[in-house]
Amino acid sequence: MTDQDYMRLAIELAANTNGQTSPNPLVGAVVVKENQIVGMGAHLKAGEPHAEVHAINMAGDKAKGATIYVTLEPCSHHGRTPPCADLLIKSEVKRVVIASTDPNPLVAGKGIEKLRKAGIEVDVGILREEAEQLNEVFFHYISTGMPYVTLKSATSLDGKIATVSGESKWITSEESRLDVHKYRHQHDGILVGVNTIIKDDPELTTRLPLGGKNPIRIILDTNLRTPPGAKIVNDNKAPTWIIVGKNAAAEKIQTMNEKQAQVIEMSFDTLNIHNVLKLLAEKGITSLFVEGGSQINGSFIKAKAINQVITYIAPKIIGGTSAPTSIGGEGFEKMNEVLSLQIKSIETIGPDIKIISKPIRKEE
Amino acid sequence: MTDQDYMRLAIELAANTNGQTSPNPLVGAVVVKENQIVGMGAHLKAGEPHAEVHAINMAGDKAKGATIYVTLEPCSHHGRTPPCADLLIKSEVKRVVIASTDPNPLVAGKGIEKLRKAGIEVDVGILREEAEQLNEVFFHYISTGMPYVTLKSATSLDGKIATVSGESKWITSEESRLDVHKYRHQHDGILVGVNTIIKDDPELTTRLPLGGKNPIRIILDTNLRTPPGAKIVNDNKAPTWIIVGKNAAAEKIQTMNEKQAQVIEMSFDTLNIHNVLKLLAEKGITSLFVEGGSQINGSFIKAKAINQVITYIAPKIIGGTSAPTSIGGEGFEKMNEVLSLQIKSIETIGPDIKIISKPIRKEE
Amino acid sequence: MTDQDYMRLAIELAANTNGQTSPNPLVGAVVVKENQIVGMGAHLKAGEPHAEVHAINMAGDKAKGATIYVTLEPCSHHGRTPPCADLLIKSEVKRVVIASTDPNPLVAGKGIEKLRKAGIEVDVGILREEAEQLNEVFFHYISTGMPYVTLKSATSLDGKIATVSGESKWITSEESRLDVHKYRHQHDGILVGVNTIIKDDPELTTRLPLGGKNPIRIILDTNLRTPPGAKIVNDNKAPTWIIVGKNAAAEKIQTMNEKQAQVIEMSFDTLNIHNVLKLLAEKGITSLFVEGGSQINGSFIKAKAINQVITYIAPKIIGGTSAPTSIGGEGFEKMNEVLSLQIKSIETIGPDIKIISKPIRKEE
Amino acid sequence: MTDQDYMRLAIELAANTNGQTSPNPLVGAVVVKENQIVGMGAHLKAGEPHAEVHAINMAGDKAKGATIYVTLEPCSHHGRTPPCADLLIKSEVKRVVIASTDPNPLVAGKGIEKLRKAGIEVDVGILREEAEQLNEVFFHYISTGMPYVTLKSATSLDGKIATVSGESKWITSEESRLDVHKYRHQHDGILVGVNTIIKDDPELTTRLPLGGKNPIRIILDTNLRTPPGAKIVNDNKAPTWIIVGKNAAAEKIQTMNEKQAQVIEMSFDTLNIHNVLKLLAEKGITSLFVEGGSQINGSFIKAKAINQVITYIAPKIIGGTSAPTSIGGEGFEKMNEVLSLQIKSIETIGPDIKIISKPIRKEE
Ligand SMILES: [Zn+2]
Ligand SMILES: [Zn+2]
Ligand SMILES: [Zn+2]
Ligand SMILES: [Zn+2]
Repeated sequence: MTDQDYMRLAIELAANTNGQTSPNPLVGAVVVKENQIVGMGAHLKAGEPHAEVHAINMAGDKAKGATIYVTLEPCSHHGRTPPCADLLIKSEVKRVVIASTDPNPLVAGKGIEKLRKAGIEVDVGILREEAEQLNEVFFHYISTGMPYVTLKSATSLDGKIATVSGESKWITSEESRLDVHKYRHQHDGILVGVNTIIKDDPELTTRLPLGGKNPIRIILDTNLRTPPGAKIVNDNKAPTWIIVGKNAAAEKIQTMNEKQAQVIEMSFDTLNIHNVLKLLAEKGITSLFVEGGSQINGSFIKAKAINQVITYIAPKIIGGTSAPTSIGGEGFEKMNEVLSLQIKSIETIGPDIKIISKPIRKEE
Repeated sequence: MTDQDYMRLAIELAANTNGQTSPNPLVGAVVVKENQIVGMGAHLKAGEPHAEVHAINMAGDKAKGATIYVTLEPCSHHGRTPPCADLLIKSEVKRVVIASTDPNPLVAGKGIEKLRKAGIEVDVGILREEAEQLNEVFFHYISTGMPYVTLKSATSLDGKIATVSGESKWITSEESRLDVHKYRHQHDGILVGVNTIIKDDPELTTRLPLGGKNPIRIILDTNLRTPPGAKIVNDNKAPTWIIVGKNAAAEKIQTMNEKQAQVIEMSFDTLNIHNVLKLLAEKGITSLFVEGGSQINGSFIKAKAINQVITYIAPKIIGGTSAPTSIGGEGFEKMNEVLSLQIKSIETIGPDIKIISKPIRKEE
Repeated sequence: MTDQDYMRLAIELAANTNGQTSPNPLVGAVVVKENQIVGMGAHLKAGEPHAEVHAINMAGDKAKGATIYVTLEPCSHHGRTPPCADLLIKSEVKRVVIASTDPNPLVAGKGIEKLRKAGIEVDVGILREEAEQLNEVFFHYISTGMPYVTLKSATSLDGKIATVSGESKWITSEESRLDVHKYRHQHDGILVGVNTIIKDDPELTTRLPLGGKNPIRIILDTNLRTPPGAKIVNDNKAPTWIIVGKNAAAEKIQTMNEKQAQVIEMSFDTLNIHNVLKLLAEKGITSLFVEGGSQINGSFIKAKAINQVITYIAPKIIGGTSAPTSIGGEGFEKMNEVLSLQIKSIETIGPDIKIISKPIRKEE
Repeated sequence: MTDQDYMRLAIELAANTNGQTSPNPLVGAVVVKENQIVGMGAHLKAGEPHAEVHAINMAGDKAKGATIYVTLEPCSHHGRTPPCADLLIKSEVKRVVIASTDPNPLVAGKGIEKLRKAGIEVDVGILREEAEQLNEVFFHYISTGMPYVTLKSATSLDGKIATVSGESKWITSEESRLDVHKYRHQHDGILVGVNTIIKDDPELTTRLPLGGKNPIRIILDTNLRTPPGAKIVNDNKAPTWIIVGKNAAAEKIQTMNEKQAQVIEMSFDTLNIHNVLKLLAEKGITSLFVEGGSQINGSFIKAKAINQVITYIAPKIIGGTSAPTSIGGEGFEKMNEVLSLQIKSIETIGPDIKIISKPIRKEE
């Protein structure tokens, strides 16, 4: 076994908690003594013990003189839990191996410094890339102060999301739709436009065979047209936020606030995507899953406000000049303005194709 | 070396002539004596010698007592060339190994019968599936009397073929566009709608680094609106056929016929896709490459008159409710009426994705 | 996430403890509540807590109403630790998902029965095959009462283990030799013949970059010819057992017992492999790594007393009629008596080839 | 289609004649006009037309203005057939595309020069590496004046070629043995030692389902001990050469020469491998397949007189200190003298493993 082998296990532990730690990062830890594992742990939920705590607990007295592998630099400040750096010092571990440093520039390196001052050997950078990839969402949120936005679409091979008569159930297969629910489970928030609420009255919950965490349901609704009888504002299955413009009628707002939904008023006539995202970030949304309607998708694309596009394509041709497509709105006028992506993966899922792509960042 | 090894070579020889033998099938032949190849050949062009002739010519006297591997049953009737069965008998080959029998039910088995009567050992069915796959177009044409129709589209990831302002150059990459020219080279005919002619004034020729065969250019143009100045009716680079309805103006027809284009009048007001395909088949078009326009593509899809769909998807998002998509027209109303496909292959081509799919044939 | 996903994680946790749990099996456990992981654990060392204990500890109060995934049926009897079945009942878990039942027929099913009687839902067999594969050694030991024997050889492409002059350092690459040390780390015992001790004076320890567990070192030495100055009987790096025949000289035995080695006298003139293995099993050796000398290897093969053969082949030709080969001894006389193997894997390791094979079990 | 595509077909045509052109190289040719294939050919047998002749014949008048793809530089000298360069000039081809130049330094470039002087466009080097790989044997023979030597062995996993009692039928599977016959078909000569003749009385012929070319059978037999009744000197199935030292008894030589075998006397007491190879090269053997006997194999290895080693390994353990191995003889004394190889391929063949390796050429 090598440092890489143990760090890989730590990453594996962390990866399995995807969707349950937000707004905290995924972190895994492994304690090793004389080439034998004596402790394993992962951070399981915000507000609860960090990965190091679980791993050191499992190790018990054996932590003394051991090496601990952690995917992220141990914390050195008092938060909801005491600093892990202190715990490691107190446990008398001999060596700390770290994959990536803290993305928060204010605290980066402080945990490492503390450990070294205490005479502990610290090695940094083992499998750094994998560890950063693991926490892509978290690193983005910390470094930009904005949520990581994933836009999902599910279309026919000719790009349609419904027939000319509006029928849309179901274009993609059961397998693809199940896959979508895994993403819902992993995201802090799911966002749609009010038209989707009016037309489909969806639940926007996570429906997996073994259950799952529901994301916060967010409706973009400038004039507060969400029907008071909509499932989403009555079912109490997860928080529902309705984002409205400054001209939304006060009595409507009051009606809605008496229900299970929370109305959030913005100080603008029309909803600007960047402002909305900033607001959501302030309210703790680190990852946003946009599932929403041709218009809303179009707005996000036009604003180039996305970090990832997940496209499910069903092997069907729906046809029809007036049949709606996944990305509507104004669109771009010129070919040199359109959103350029890089394909990250292509796979088949049931009878469908799933494509993950990300915007190409231009050098400036 | 085994029978399979030699037949695989014969298939390989045939496969390399794809695009040059129409309306004849692709056929390859290998002559083997004492486990050594003494002759190889392929059918190169309609009206010229069959594969067996080339292979037997190369073998010379060594054909006597040899085995010949042919991908398709040797012909037994006098066509533009004398029957190959007679040639094999005269050459005193000892054994004939055949991959697939003739798809024409009127002559199927007759070549085999003739050879056997002459005392030659005949084995049929070695790599039959591969050989039939090789001639999918030809087998379709012979058994249905209709051209094999391939519909091509090239779209952005959100299914668009142009921006809202109509800009469309270029959505897909140079690699994808080069690939399209390979298909043009291999098809008898290429079909577009008159709107494409009016809007783009395209050449519809094969532009490959080493040249290539131009397909016959076919325009669906009910009311004969093709501009007399269009390149396609003046450049003389390949035959151009303009298919018009019975109400097309006579003087326009005369004007056009004085140019390099041939006007074909149908006895209907509006052009029915099945009638058009039937007509094209009668005029010797065995394979048709439909490259054309959202409306025309929509008509072929609505008529379910296609055998293969080739889709190039560029990793770009164009967006826009009014941006055109690859398959327009009326479309299907109900999800259970849409055209269901089966994906045959997915590959990357330059930065793009290429998907080949075929309609799922329903059992009836 | 599905049952399979969580069980796969439990297996992964267990797999990483390979080499440190003997004579106990590898076991992993994961506690899940509302599709979120709330506890993870693995059995780390014999005599210490079982996997379930670690996982339930990490889960804390959340265990109540949760599902626990365990790779092996929870124990129901009082051993060195209290029964895990009782712990699960007390923790009020709602459901227990088990990959494989206990291989010990005396207790198999008892844990499950106890859980079900307590009203807990129990599902058995999820990823059973992978879980049994994981514990192949343990299952073999429990069901046959014999150690699982792996014979390792490292030869040139022409099967030699030394040149005609006896030079043997090094045939295989550093990468292959490192791989061998991973196997030493994972085995309870390593076995060689006395000739290897006399000729090479090896340490037979695990030398990995981060250390490792040394196996018990076992010498087959009928007449107790091990030199009193051999490293292995003086270095105190791991227990050393010298197995001798009944005619070994008493004073030599005494000399040796005064050193760090333990002499084990068998009641036979010559050492029979099956008797030796039985003795080792009784002394707690569940897995034996035979690294030893052409003669000793030959004896194990002749006795067909092996479960796995690992062969490293270096791309070299040493040649020489008198150069020794990996498997010497008497050998088999007839081709229909030789040991037939089935190849399980072939891989390259550095410049060498590594082949894992297992005896073909004949139906009787 | 690109230059590469057509050259790949030419290489494919050549590759299929492997084993039938010696001492000539494998050569393929394709004639292309306007992106359509109009001629294909390969060199089929020494003394018969070159590849270009067949391809140009098939093309007929269409050769004029066409491009010809040839895997090897066209010949420019009068041999058993007229110069191909002249033919191409006379055929008025427009362009000649060549993969590799002639390996014979005396004529290399002369064909190209002649073509260029005649105003033909010549491009050299398209797929050169593949083309040279195709003719590895021929290039070696021309550039060194020695045959290309392939040593074949078939052993158990422990390197044995027979049991301690000498039983050796069969170690490897039917699939592996069939594969050996493909190599016999492709080689000019097969070589064994006289002990193999005395012990096994083999035929050393090619036995493939569809027949095959028998290699010349060569026996190394210093003292002419080949039994006059051996199959190989009576069956007339292929030439048999017996290479003897200068002390071989004259009357034995006379006896043997009256049979189907040809005795070749060397002017040395003992047979030196390099001298033997030189002699064989002079007699036209370009490729030699050494199948023989532990001693003979040992001599070739000791002399480092091999170009390729093909090893079949059966998943069996035969064991036995006295069981013979594939490479006997004196062997090397020191590890730093042994023959170092590089593995070129590893594949499974039936239940066995097939390894192809080649000596590592040391820089000098
Ligand atoms: Zn912490
Ligand atoms: Zn014919
Ligand atoms: Zn337990
Ligand atoms: Zn020539």
